[in-house]
Amino acid sequence: MNSNKRIDELVTPIKDDLSSGAAELALQGIAAFRTLMSENEKASPEQLTALLIAMAQALVKAHPAMAPLFHLGNDVLQATKQSKDTRAIIETADNALDLFETRLCDSAAKIADHVYGLIPGGELVFAYSFSSTVVSSLLNARSRGKYFRAVCTEARPSMEGRKLATMLAGAGMEVINTFDSAMGLILPQCRVAFMGCDCVGRPGIVNKVGSWLLALACREQGIPLYALAGTEKFVTDERFFEFEDHQRPGAEVWKDAPNGIAVINKQYEPIPFNWLAGVVTEHGILQEDNIEQYISKMEVHESLRIQGVFA
Amino acid sequence: MNSNKRIDELVTPIKDDLSSGAAELALQGIAAFRTLMSENEKASPEQLTALLIAMAQALVKAHPAMAPLFHLGNDVLQATKQSKDTRAIIETADNALDLFETRLCDSAAKIADHVYGLIPGGELVFAYSFSSTVVSSLLNARSRGKYFRAVCTEARPSMEGRKLATMLAGAGMEVINTFDSAMGLILPQCRVAFMGCDCVGRPGIVNKVGSWLLALACREQGIPLYALAGTEKFVTDERFFEFEDHQRPGAEVWKDAPNGIAVINKQYEPIPFNWLAGVVTEHGILQEDNIEQYISKMEVHESLRIQGVFA
Repeated sequence: MNSNKRIDELVTPIKDDLSSGAAELALQGIAAFRTLMSENEKASPEQLTALLIAMAQALVKAHPAMAPLFHLGNDVLQATKQSKDTRAIIETADNALDLFETRLCDSAAKIADHVYGLIPGGELVFAYSFSSTVVSSLLNARSRGKYFRAVCTEARPSMEGRKLATMLAGAGMEVINTFDSAMGLILPQCRVAFMGCDCVGRPGIVNKVGSWLLALACREQGIPLYALAGTEKFVTDERFFEFEDHQRPGAEVWKDAPNGIAVINKQYEPIPFNWLAGVVTEHGILQEDNIEQYISKMEVHESLRIQGVFA
Repeated sequence: MNSNKRIDELVTPIKDDLSSGAAELALQGIAAFRTLMSENEKASPEQLTALLIAMAQALVKAHPAMAPLFHLGNDVLQATKQSKDTRAIIETADNALDLFETRLCDSAAKIADHVYGLIPGGELVFAYSFSSTVVSSLLNARSRGKYFRAVCTEARPSMEGRKLATMLAGAGMEVINTFDSAMGLILPQCRVAFMGCDCVGRPGIVNKVGSWLLALACREQGIPLYALAGTEKFVTDERFFEFEDHQRPGAEVWKDAPNGIAVINKQYEPIPFNWLAGVVTEHGILQEDNIEQYISKMEVHESLRIQGVFA
């Protein structure tokens, strides 16, 4: 099989999954890398390297706003740069994948510990869109004996808010759900709000469309809103604005819209730091001033620089 | 046929119509009153009066936030108060219905004239939810040679924003549509925003859920937002908060939601005057200070006082 076609086959389910968060999709990306390597154990080192680069680029293109997919590929490519033969490439890449997986899980566990301290018992807690980090944080707090009810909205058009509601309710939590534009009616009853995010950079954070309105409404009503994000979500300035070009088909919003109606289906939007109470990471609750130190250390593999991926 | 059942039959289509605005439903209410009278020409004056009261109360109960339905019934009951025989009741009621219909149409035409002056040519104009007054105002401006594009969102859960988009596009206007929570992405490109409203009182206006977020986003981005409302939308203080008890079935938002998820489906919310650029009425563009003079003159028929309808 043509190797580009095979990569396409492995990445398409990740690209078309609109209801999973960035951390969840990075776990699927790890599996895709592993499958690709197991199918190419007899390739030459040059061939295998080219495949890993193509896979890393395809994952970034699938969800340009999702930083973990970028870091996953970048880590694999940086780790294998010095490997000379096929076996060494596979070994170092496998190591990088293991490390990334461990980092994702460790981040989620540490973030959940920080979130525990932010949830007031007996109150309503708002959560937006879908994020596996938000789910694990809320369930962790509940299992440690904190009683609260969760409030969430649909998150049109992909309705991943229903996935969030279903998972929380399935774990025995009382959940209140409504449509997105009813946020203004329900937020005044909530004491704190959480959302995942797709990337964090010096200009702010990027998350699912609707987060800007949520942040504005929280600011207006004095409700602290936290973005939950391991540092695998942190990105350099040039990557931060990648989300702007990302648009899905209008038919996902309105199938068979009449002629003369242009249907816009953008996925992400930026939210400034000063509208957030903080970014909850594995290193604690960070503010705008703390972001720089994590971003300045980042090294980007040459094939993942913006001109490399979007040439 | 049992007369309560007949009134129920006439009012149910109005109650279940979630995609029409208040002025449009008032026109349907006029037709319902006319049908009721034509079917009861041989009733005694007492019987007919009781029927008119029951119909007026049923219309208010169908959409408690929609002021025109209240004023329609109130005008009929006030007009017929002194009529002694069945024929006189029918004549005075018919007159009141004619007057109300004329008032609705005159208001819409005068509002359209005021809106014409608020639309900057060549720009994007935002419109929320569905309002026949907004439609007629935008189409009037377009037919008088003003070129602009309209932007609107779905207005979940009833999707009456699609009705707005379809009507404008059907009349040859270019329309941009997206989901409600994407307001924050599209509003910065708009120069002015319009919405209908269900009632206007001293505390502010009441409109379809989502209007609060729209007003907040417009204020944040410096976009003037106008509510279009003939004075048939104006109400006294006690009636203003009627919308709070009005809730539709959760299944209209999420059919077959899993156990443990309470789905909230509220229809209306209040917006304070100081978030609006003004209320465009048949008497011009009014501000908070101008509202009092219209409300202080209102007389409410005893059977339509809050305790009468909701006893």
